[in-house]
Order: sequence, then structure tokens, then C-alpha cells
Amino acid sequence: MILEGLMTTVNADGSVNIAPMGPVVDAAMNAFCLRPFQTSTTFANLKRTGQGVFHITDDVEMIARAAVGTVVPPPALEPARAVEGWILSEACRWYALRVRRIDDRQQRTEIEAEAIDRGRLRDFFGFNRAKHAVLEAAILATRIHLLSLAEIQAEIDRLRVPVQKTGGDAEQRAFEFLADYVTRAGVQPDSPPERGS
Amino acid sequence: MILEGLMTTVNADGSVNIAPMGPVVDAAMNAFCLRPFQTSTTFANLKRTGQGVFHITDDVEMIARAAVGTVVPPPALEPARAVEGWILSEACRWYALRVRRIDDRQQRTEIEAEAIDRGRLRDFFGFNRAKHAVLEAAILATRIHLLSLAEIQAEIDRLRVPVQKTGGDAEQRAFEFLADYVTRAGVQPDSPPERGS
Repeated sequence: MILEGLMTTVNADGSVNIAPMGPVVDAAMNAFCLRPFQTSTTFANLKRTGQGVFHITDDVEMIARAAVGTVVPPPALEPARAVEGWILSEACRWYALRVRRIDDRQQRTEIEAEAIDRGRLRDFFGFNRAKHAVLEAAILATRIHLLSLAEIQAEIDRLRVPVQKTGGDAEQRAFEFLADYVTRAGVQPDSPPERGS
Repeated sequence: MILEGLMTTVNADGSVNIAPMGPVVDAAMNAFCLRPFQTSTTFANLKRTGQGVFHITDDVEMIARAAVGTVVPPPALEPARAVEGWILSEACRWYALRVRRIDDRQQRTEIEAEAIDRGRLRDFFGFNRAKHAVLEAAILATRIHLLSLAEIQAEIDRLRVPVQKTGGDAEQRAFEFLADYVTRAGVQPDSPPERGS
């Protein structure tokens, strides 16, 4: 199963990097297979430090912001204990990961990691079509260099329907933030971000 | 916010009815606005008994089966205490609801209910694109009488991609069960089920 969430890693200067990540996980949530691109900050940090924290969250506004750049305002963080790293205080659950094996022969790397600590902070909301549409738009925003502006716009228009029907204020805000981003980026396709940055 | 889950109500013969339901909920999960169709079993049961149990679950196989008919095999149930009704033992969280007001002047009714008891059984998995695609297919299966076979088939083909990429065995099974159902129902459009049955 692929589980979409947020990864925190520590940058070389000690600051925290927050990026969306969709690892393959086992049923017990012990083994994580991460697949960041070689060019991503998450990959550089995992390779250098060998540790990080994966989070399950239903906060699609944070996922949206992390997908296309820096999370503003910076989220509340707590230090992890089992690894040198940071826990997103508003996440639902977190898994402190220790890297066991890195295969970086391909552009998209494969990193096997083990959960050596975990915690539960609050409940995940449950199925909501608007939250999921924002997640899809966030994934789209990281793939704009692979798609035409027309394809992007059609997909955004399709995803807006459930957001307006089933979402709250946070979902509407997060979606329009991403819709603006992909429209602007589609017009100026020079600076594509990469998923799992 | 609309929260997609499963509703159990008690039939006139004492048996349990399980149906998908997407109520509007407040942030504290105290007030639920349900909108079952007048023709649905859930509506008849809520009107007759004034009570039911709403469940948050990530078990899309159960959602798929409840959407198009009877849940087979019958799921494990525990009696609720605050209401006369049944809790799905494998759900993530449940809310025992007492009906406060019914407006059934329209075909699609509006039922205001209050959560008078609640419980937590296990964690919701988190964001997974396959689980969400099965949920979308289940909603589609309850709307086949509103769509053409070509539209249904195009949507099923689109949803199959994330199911195959990101799901486990249960998601694949649930999706193909629904795909078979909508294809068959599209060919014989006489017996449309209704969402929230």
C-alpha cells in the first residue's frame, strides 16, 4: 500500500525540510520504502543523516504548501527522541525512521527504512472528497513539467467540483492556492518543483 | 464538511441495515445532517426508530458492498448502548445518533441528528489514492441511473489507474467488484440502487 503523507528531514544547516512523500508501507507500519528523486532535498538529507520522520495527516493545507515550496507559516514542531529530527505537532500520527538501505542508481531512488519509534497525536478525519481532491491537486502541482497547461487546467476544473461541494474553508483555501500555483507555473514552465522535494 | 462513512440502522424486523452515508458534520462531530432519499431503507428506519450509528472506516471493501446491496459476509457487530442499534466492530470510529428533526418535504430528506455517544476502535489508515478511488467508484455505482454507460466506463477506467498503482489486495478486489457491478447495471438499467439505501 502507498500511504501519502509528509516527511520531515534535517537540512545540512540544521533547519527542517518538510515534503510530501508516498512511501510503500507494510500492514504493521514497520517497513517503509521511500522513493525520493535524487535531486530532492529529502533524498540529500536522508542520505547524509540516515534518519527522518514520516507523518500521517489530514491537513491538506500543509500538504499543499509543502508540495510547492516552503510551509508558511512554519508549523509547530517537537523534537523526536529516537532519531535526530522533528515531529509535526499537528499531524495525526508519526513514524521515526532509520534508513537501512539506499539504492540511488536510478533518478528515482529507493530507500528502505525502518520505523524505530511512533506516536499518535489525533484522529484522521476520515473520507472527505474535498481533502482528497486537494491531495490530487498537490500531486498534480509536482508534475506540471510532465503535463500540458490544457491537461492541468482540465484536471483542476474537475477536482474543484468536490472541493466546493464537500470541503470546509481550509480545503477551499488549499485548493485555490494550488490552482493559482499550477496556472502560473503552467505559463512559466522554468521552475518545476519535484515531488518529495 | 461532508464525511463519507457507513450508517447502521435497525429494520422493522430487527435486522441491521448497513448503507453508505455522507453527512455534513461540525468540527466537534456533535451535529450530523443526514440526507437519505425518501425511498431508502435508512430513511424509513431513521424515521421509525429515531436512532442509528454512523461509522468512520477505511474499509473500502465494506463500503463497496454496502453501496450496491447487502454486505456479504455479514460484518462483526456489537450492540450500541446509548441507542438501540449496532456498531461495526471493524470500523475506525463510531457515533451513536439520536434524530432531532426530520424534513421530508423533498425527495432527498434532511435529518438533523445529535451524537449522544461515540467510540474509537482503531486508526484510519490515512491518505491512499486506491482507497479513495474505490470510494468514488462506490458513489458512481449509486448514480448509474443518472449517467450513460460510456460515462461510467470512462470514469471506471480513470479510477482503475490509482487502484492498481497504490492499492493492496482488498482495494483491487473492492474496485473490480464495483467495476463488474456498474458494467452489468449499465447494460440492464432497470434496478438502480439508491445511495444511502
